[in-house]
Amino acid sequence: MTQKTFAFVVYPGLTILDLVGPLQVLSAFAEAEPSVRVAVVGAEPATVGTDTPLRIAPSHTFAEIPDPSWVVVPGGGAPTLRALGDPALVGYLRRAAASAELMTSVCTGSLLLGQAGLLDGREATTHWTFLEALRAFGAKPVRERWVDTGEVITAAGVSAGIDLALHLVERLAGPDVARLVQFGVEYDPQPPLGALDWSLAPGEWMRPRTERLVREGLAGQPELQEKLLALL
Amino acid sequence: MTQKTFAFVVYPGLTILDLVGPLQVLSAFAEAEPSVRVAVVGAEPATVGTDTPLRIAPSHTFAEIPDPSWVVVPGGGAPTLRALGDPALVGYLRRAAASAELMTSVCTGSLLLGQAGLLDGREATTHWTFLEALRAFGAKPVRERWVDTGEVITAAGVSAGIDLALHLVERLAGPDVARLVQFGVEYDPQPPLGALDWSLAPGEWMRPRTERLVREGLAGQPELQEKLLALL
Repeated sequence: MTQKTFAFVVYPGLTILDLVGPLQVLSAFAEAEPSVRVAVVGAEPATVGTDTPLRIAPSHTFAEIPDPSWVVVPGGGAPTLRALGDPALVGYLRRAAASAELMTSVCTGSLLLGQAGLLDGREATTHWTFLEALRAFGAKPVRERWVDTGEVITAAGVSAGIDLALHLVERLAGPDVARLVQFGVEYDPQPPLGALDWSLAPGEWMRPRTERLVREGLAGQPELQEKLLALL
Repeated sequence: MTQKTFAFVVYPGLTILDLVGPLQVLSAFAEAEPSVRVAVVGAEPATVGTDTPLRIAPSHTFAEIPDPSWVVVPGGGAPTLRALGDPALVGYLRRAAASAELMTSVCTGSLLLGQAGLLDGREATTHWTFLEALRAFGAKPVRERWVDTGEVITAAGVSAGIDLALHLVERLAGPDVARLVQFGVEYDPQPPLGALDWSLAPGEWMRPRTERLVREGLAGQPELQEKLLALL
């Protein structure tokens, strides 16, 4: 039996929930569906840091999983912007996309898809503080929980990867399987303060932080840095 | 300034989203609140496996964080049941509880709190498939997203750790800070199939799997194994 592989891409400093939300959901799917397997891929086998004190190690290198069927790219802050200039990572995404059925991202992982040339002319989303930055890659920003354009799916910030992954299970295996997986991870969200009230979004409060991330992460790429700062 | 420490306990084979949901939320809180820091603690500094292909490494050993202010214990399947017989882990929880303000758990992490003697006579919750097993530790099972008894908070399965953590931020710092953190991780859940409809819960379908986990995880503790099998 030929297994299809979900490749979860890791790199230093990523936002860990961007990775783990869909990793948990799709690992539960893989447990129920033997034709699917999950791999965590990185440039090197070594442990890397995250945006929390947790350190993580991939299960495979990019070279070991050259042609995944589906790819999930997590985002993050300054380290994700820095990764836009990482030829090993961006090159892996570009090569994988040539044969993959589906490329997906969580949060600012969509900027990495954009840098790999995969969002040109497409609708896409990302963390709300970076939404306009998508235009730098030719994408049309859309404020949705996830945006499915067929071959590319982008999700909103951090926790949105869970919703993206359940959508993916439903798309691949139907609602009955997606519901079983949802019961498995007991995804019955009850945010204590309710859903986000976007009229209260702290946009002005967040802007200096977002600009700082762009200045820091893109210090080595002044042209792209300027482009993003003009869009934010 | 004396910092208060959130200690996230790791052990081999845990369910990774149980750990990472609250870790992400409380790390965002720590970023906004310098009097708080987050640590990931394990028996050894070495990398351990999870219930997915991702491997993880703690930032500190138990010995390095002997008296955390708050403790978060993630759960899992057979490995969590096996950990009930791990004296280093259970001993750490028991000692930490003597001075901690708050002991918390996600999913079957509550069984570990129970094994450390912290749930006797308390209301508590856990993953829905293990709810009745809490009686083995003297707890009164309650089916809620989280159960806050003051010094101990237990959450439901896997993804419930995100809700628990936001509740904790609200309890420690008020709703305005909790809302900022919620915007930071863009927690505006939209499960594609909606919230869980508990009338469709696959209880009979899951039971053989749950029993297998108990048989496997508690093979070395036949008395506790039998007790749990009788309760499920």
